[in-house]
Amino acid sequence: MVSSMGLARISRVTPAQIRKDLSYFGRFGKQGRGYNVGQLLEELWRILGLNRRWRIALVGVGKVGRAILEYGGFDSQGFQVVQAFDVDHQIVGQKLASVTIRHASELEQRLREDPVDIGIVAVPAVEAQAVVDALVRCGVKAILNYAPLCPRRPAHVELRQIDPVLALQSMTFHLKALEQPAKRR
Amino acid sequence: MVSSMGLARISRVTPAQIRKDLSYFGRFGKQGRGYNVGQLLEELWRILGLNRRWRIALVGVGKVGRAILEYGGFDSQGFQVVQAFDVDHQIVGQKLASVTIRHASELEQRLREDPVDIGIVAVPAVEAQAVVDALVRCGVKAILNYAPLCPRRPAHVELRQIDPVLALQSMTFHLKALEQPAKRR
Repeated sequence: MVSSMGLARISRVTPAQIRKDLSYFGRFGKQGRGYNVGQLLEELWRILGLNRRWRIALVGVGKVGRAILEYGGFDSQGFQVVQAFDVDHQIVGQKLASVTIRHASELEQRLREDPVDIGIVAVPAVEAQAVVDALVRCGVKAILNYAPLCPRRPAHVELRQIDPVLALQSMTFHLKALEQPAKRR
Repeated sequence: MVSSMGLARISRVTPAQIRKDLSYFGRFGKQGRGYNVGQLLEELWRILGLNRRWRIALVGVGKVGRAILEYGGFDSQGFQVVQAFDVDHQIVGQKLASVTIRHASELEQRLREDPVDIGIVAVPAVEAQAVVDALVRCGVKAILNYAPLCPRRPAHVELRQIDPVLALQSMTFHLKALEQPAKRR
C-alpha cells in the first residue's frame, strides 16, 4: 500500500494534488488506507494507454534513425518500429532490427496499406516539414521529431521535440539570472 | 521590420502575448511601426544568454556520449564540451573532438580546478543520480540528462530530460482518447 502522502513525496507535488489528479479518473484507494500499489500501477498504465502495443513508422535512417532502430528500450515499453524509410539507395532494402528499410517515395502508399499510430522523424531540418505533412495525410496522430525545427501540424496531432540544443538554450536564461542577480528584472 | 501580428502568426500565440512578453524586458519597437528584426534578434539572444559561450562537462562517453561529442550542432550555438569523463579504461585517455576523456573518479577534482556551466549526463540509469550529485557539488547549475530516470537535484539546479520513451509515453494518453471518444471522461 502507498498513501497519497507517500506518492506526493516521490513525485514532489502535494498529497491534495495526487488525490485530485487520480479522482479525475474514478475512485482509487480506500479512505485512510491509501492505494494498493499493484492495482494503482495497472490502472495508471491502462489510463495512459501503456498496456498495449503502439506501431511506429521511422522516417530517416541516418545516425539518429539507426540508433532508434537499434535501441532496445522502446520495445519493452510497448513501442514497436514496424516500418522505416530513407532516401539513400545505399540503405534502402537493408534490414535493421527486423525492419526492412523502404524508399521514402513509398511512404504514403505503405502507411495507407499498413497504418501506424506514431511517426518518428529523423530527417534533416529541410525535409522535416514535408515528412510531417505526409505522415499527417496518412492519419498519424502523434509525432516524435528529432529534426532541429518545430514543424507545423494540425491541432489534433501531438508532437514532441527531441532537440538537445533547444533544451540547452532553454536553460541559459536561468544560468544568466543566477550569475547576475542584480541585473535581473 | 516585423509587427507583433507577424510574430504572433509565426509563433502561434496572440499579438497581445508577444507585446506583453517583450515588454517584460523593457521597451522594444516603436508604436505602429513594429520591431527591427536585427535589433530584436540581438536583444533576444542577449536576454536568453545565447550571445556567449557556455562550458559543458559530459559524463558518459558510450554510444550517446560519443554522438554528443561528435555532433556539430552545439558549438555553432555557443555550447562547447570542454571536459568528458567515463569509467571504461578502454576509452579513458582517448581524444574525441579535441576533448581528452578522463576517468570519472577525477571528475570532482577537475571540475573544481576548471569549472563548467552545464553538465550533460549520458550514463546508465543506475549511475545517473550519483553523477548528478557530483556535478551539483561542483557548482553545476544546469543539467541535460539522457539517462532514463528523473534525478533528484536542489531547486536552484535546472534539469532537462532527453528521453524518447518518456516523450512517446506522454502522447499515448492523447492517442487513446482520439480512438475512444465515447469512453473519454
